[in-house]
Amino acid sequence: MQPDEARRRLADLGFDEEDARTLFDHFDEAERRGKVSHGYARIEWLETLPGLQPEAKPAKVFSSPGLDRWEGRGAIGYVTLAAICADLATTPPVSARVVGAAGCFPTGALGLWVRRLAEVGLVALLTATSPPRLPHPAGGEPLVGTNPLAIGIPNSEGEPIVVDVSMGRVTHGDVLLGRASPDELVPFGGEQAHKAFALALGLGLWVESFVGADYGAVLVVAQPEFDPAAALRERAAGLRLPGDR
Amino acid sequence: MQPDEARRRLADLGFDEEDARTLFDHFDEAERRGKVSHGYARIEWLETLPGLQPEAKPAKVFSSPGLDRWEGRGAIGYVTLAAICADLATTPPVSARVVGAAGCFPTGALGLWVRRLAEVGLVALLTATSPPRLPHPAGGEPLVGTNPLAIGIPNSEGEPIVVDVSMGRVTHGDVLLGRASPDELVPFGGEQAHKAFALALGLGLWVESFVGADYGAVLVVAQPEFDPAAALRERAAGLRLPGDR
Repeated sequence: MQPDEARRRLADLGFDEEDARTLFDHFDEAERRGKVSHGYARIEWLETLPGLQPEAKPAKVFSSPGLDRWEGRGAIGYVTLAAICADLATTPPVSARVVGAAGCFPTGALGLWVRRLAEVGLVALLTATSPPRLPHPAGGEPLVGTNPLAIGIPNSEGEPIVVDVSMGRVTHGDVLLGRASPDELVPFGGEQAHKAFALALGLGLWVESFVGADYGAVLVVAQPEFDPAAALRERAAGLRLPGDR
Repeated sequence: MQPDEARRRLADLGFDEEDARTLFDHFDEAERRGKVSHGYARIEWLETLPGLQPEAKPAKVFSSPGLDRWEGRGAIGYVTLAAICADLATTPPVSARVVGAAGCFPTGALGLWVRRLAEVGLVALLTATSPPRLPHPAGGEPLVGTNPLAIGIPNSEGEPIVVDVSMGRVTHGDVLLGRASPDELVPFGGEQAHKAFALALGLGLWVESFVGADYGAVLVVAQPEFDPAAALRERAAGLRLPGDR
């Protein structure tokens, strides 16, 4: 799919200009960063998603110095996370804040959201829940989502460092693209898959503690006191770091 | 080592009664939960630790609704984390709070701290930095610590769920105990070790953003709105979950 076709199909789905641009920008950046399973292919997936409400808008329903709560209210997760990031860029936390987003699915490539926050100088840690796809290492039905963890670190001297790790050996996007079979969708780690399973389970319950059983996201965002990214890049001496192209 | 000997040797190190009890309780609970690399063996390690300041006391140096900052001030990390947990149990956050602890090392088995918070009804996510021990998957000198992530989920109907995952294939404690060789101390995950490396790197920079290059810890703690642990246990239908004995 080419950019023009991607834009047109998003508009055809019924999204207004702003939301279509939000979605296009996310898929396009995912393509450019090599995260193609989060790229244009997701437009075909949206076209088949039951109950899509392109006109729905998320809302911030609670705000305190330590915690904001958002509700998707039928909006697609990308739109809700874009609204949260825009809100935080406009009115950043004085020190630190947790943001819970209920009814926020799908959330796309989480690394792109924390990168946006890192680019405005905020350090961020973001995780999100998704349908159960990973079984317990002992077997059985899928019990937890791939529940990625993304961390964005601003860098006053250059590129932010952006970590974005799914707890699955392959992504659901890879399965959608036919690049992996569903039975490869297990916790990563091989003989230590219990570790990735534990992370997926813990992150999933962490999110559920804030937003309930509906899929959602929890973001922790703060004004960094220190600026450690450049020193780490120097120590890494040219080795490719997470998030680098 | 038996409990009586453990208590005596901690007192001999110069800790006052309260701090010796804090340390004993941590090591003893680690032993009882099978985390022996975080158990009594650490007392021998403390006996060899240069610059131990058993009389030092941590201090909370900043507090706002969204963020507390603590400094270890020479205190051993266990004592600082115990003080933070006690403070949060006495004056829990109204909604959510991030707690940064600078100069907080070693921190022990992080799962035990979030378990304590879960037992007073708080959901918590805790990570900590430690000396570089894990090399980049492409090789080279150790670049990041084993930087574990612990998540504690209260359970109104029974045992909390406690996740505690080190990003190393083996623990530094296992190396100390002679159960693993130093060259096994690499990111876990085998052919996907880049994922555990990325998590260790991201969590390490996350902590450094709050506390600087000295080893420290960052805790995110909140009043849960929901109580998802029991439902997950039911869905798991008897499978062993993280943190269970």
